[in-house]
Amino acid sequence: MRITGTSLLGTYRTELFDNVIPFWERHGIDREYGGYFTCLDRYGVPFSTDKYMWLQGRAVWMFARLHNEVARDRGWLDLAQQGLDFIRRFGRAPDGRAYFSLTREGLPIHIQRKIYGEVFFVMALTEMARATGSAQYLDEARELFWLVYDLWQEPARLGRPVLPGTFRGTALADPMVFLCMIEELSRLDADRRYEAVTDRMVDLSLRHVRPDRRLVLENVGLAGEFVDTPQGRLMNPGHALEMAWFLLHLARRAGRDDLVPRALEIVDWSMELGWDREFGGLYYFLDCNGQPPMQLEWNMKLWWPMCEALYATLLAWDVSGESRYLQMHETVRDWAFRHLRDPEAPEWFGYLDRRGEPTHLLKGGAWKGFFHMPRALLYCVQLLERRATRE
Amino acid sequence: MRITGTSLLGTYRTELFDNVIPFWERHGIDREYGGYFTCLDRYGVPFSTDKYMWLQGRAVWMFARLHNEVARDRGWLDLAQQGLDFIRRFGRAPDGRAYFSLTREGLPIHIQRKIYGEVFFVMALTEMARATGSAQYLDEARELFWLVYDLWQEPARLGRPVLPGTFRGTALADPMVFLCMIEELSRLDADRRYEAVTDRMVDLSLRHVRPDRRLVLENVGLAGEFVDTPQGRLMNPGHALEMAWFLLHLARRAGRDDLVPRALEIVDWSMELGWDREFGGLYYFLDCNGQPPMQLEWNMKLWWPMCEALYATLLAWDVSGESRYLQMHETVRDWAFRHLRDPEAPEWFGYLDRRGEPTHLLKGGAWKGFFHMPRALLYCVQLLERRATRE
Repeated sequence: MRITGTSLLGTYRTELFDNVIPFWERHGIDREYGGYFTCLDRYGVPFSTDKYMWLQGRAVWMFARLHNEVARDRGWLDLAQQGLDFIRRFGRAPDGRAYFSLTREGLPIHIQRKIYGEVFFVMALTEMARATGSAQYLDEARELFWLVYDLWQEPARLGRPVLPGTFRGTALADPMVFLCMIEELSRLDADRRYEAVTDRMVDLSLRHVRPDRRLVLENVGLAGEFVDTPQGRLMNPGHALEMAWFLLHLARRAGRDDLVPRALEIVDWSMELGWDREFGGLYYFLDCNGQPPMQLEWNMKLWWPMCEALYATLLAWDVSGESRYLQMHETVRDWAFRHLRDPEAPEWFGYLDRRGEPTHLLKGGAWKGFFHMPRALLYCVQLLERRATRE
Repeated sequence: MRITGTSLLGTYRTELFDNVIPFWERHGIDREYGGYFTCLDRYGVPFSTDKYMWLQGRAVWMFARLHNEVARDRGWLDLAQQGLDFIRRFGRAPDGRAYFSLTREGLPIHIQRKIYGEVFFVMALTEMARATGSAQYLDEARELFWLVYDLWQEPARLGRPVLPGTFRGTALADPMVFLCMIEELSRLDADRRYEAVTDRMVDLSLRHVRPDRRLVLENVGLAGEFVDTPQGRLMNPGHALEMAWFLLHLARRAGRDDLVPRALEIVDWSMELGWDREFGGLYYFLDCNGQPPMQLEWNMKLWWPMCEALYATLLAWDVSGESRYLQMHETVRDWAFRHLRDPEAPEWFGYLDRRGEPTHLLKGGAWKGFFHMPRALLYCVQLLERRATRE
């Protein structure tokens, strides 16, 4: 049965407000030490109390976003504030970098040689600056953004050894996180330098898109060239779909109409190559030449690529008016709701095998927190509400 | 049908000498630059030419071991020598540490903040010292062994940040690799210090064995205590089975009869908890309290735990005379030969899903090379030959 726009909206609202948000409000808040529990079993009981900084920052952003854009009387600002207080108090090393993980009490466990801990810290600060009007948070967000930019340009400062044979190209994640941070920051901060960084990052992102092969690569060489190694052949369809909607947001925000057809192509190709025709769902990783991917988990079906696909296809339909994107959306929604939803308890599973059966009964972990699901659902709800208003 | 000792010996000889060794001789040697290709597809074609140092060192060891213990006229010494020449020329950083990976030509790609690149370098040097009588190789092995020992005692020298919340217990892998290196080195080098290190490592290993719970933990606290975190609850049954036969070798070598019952328990418990009663095969990882393991691949069936189980169960039977270990061996052999062997091409698959179907059609990769399979088969062949001679 085809679900119409209105009943889709109802479905997503119910899923977001009656299922996902209450699960995290009930089980995800550490009311003793602050911050969030994310390693939660099927019923919401923590199986680890460690605090992973990507997910701490993302949860702050998500609760603050709900406060800013949905309702100011649901207590979401407090839930965001206590998380921000925790990461501002414990989350940064003496040199200003963000840790990767903390104990429940806030002692640092690990720091990555990557920039992403910092990225989600910037997101948290920015959305909280928007929620509270705090100039202090915005200053910190800005300062950390430029630190991330510097670290990205000089990876040796992250402690990553750059040896003569080390791959020196770009990873798709990097331009994407800059576009993502700027989407948030530029709303509050009129610094013209964001435009130059945006242009650079769009340029870098598009190097990963290969119209000749109708696909998107995770890693390309320094000059944007294809590199015939497992790393150079790697594709991550869910990641490409996330990039597609980042580009569509940018197109709308900055009047970059030229980006629309590029983004739509990415949706087409990612669904074409990434969708498992036998068992359904999006593969996690693929090798563009059909070689064996190095990742053991390559054929697993994860919640987050499905979340990115959910929103990217709906937005592609909204922007283009082409019904095939709505059909793709239906396919994604149908598979996701049949396989990722847990009939016995709230929140979705995170990890399924190729056939779509859960390999883990957890609802959150070191990588799955209060972020991809509620973000995708919120964005779908907001899109459908805008359309309903226009109609 | 029950396979008898004699036909088992025939089976393993065929598998080792007609299947596995020829595959690596034919496809695994880089005759242009030296060293080994390990990223090989189903039919032996390289899908990456990068050289992973764990596997380079292991392949040197394996070819040299075949030369030393099986036949001196099969060209195996040359195949080992060209690998050792490659890693001696390109494999070590200016500070003496071993790299993790090199390009085909020998340029360093990556260095890990772990000691295992060095460990397999020591193994390679030692077995080649034995093969050639080279005092130079033995000196290098010895020097590198003590470097590894120092690095293990001062992990900060590896560049791993030790932060206030960082887990400070022991990982089972660490005492195991020291026992493994000493098993080789002590054959050639009468340094009494190995005995003290052995005692220390046996003591550390046995802290991971928990008779109260009938299981073996991968990580325990500094005082050997159970740590109730995902890391502390982690089990890796294949790894525990590998430790069991290390301990049985040590018991035999050093007259440590007290270790025999400890090792046999480990075999029992690992097969009891690690074997998948629904689909067969050994799980890769488990949480000892049944919580969701953090590893996405936890329920996959890998070739190497099956290889460790193959030899550990056979050796347990040989040492104890108890028929239940031969039954376990039968179960392991039957499942391994049915699922890991490729009916279409030589060498075994490396990675199966929980049901035992291949997720990757590769025969080698960044972690699978010329090591676990031929080592397990050689050890089984040698054991069965010794028994046949005695009978």
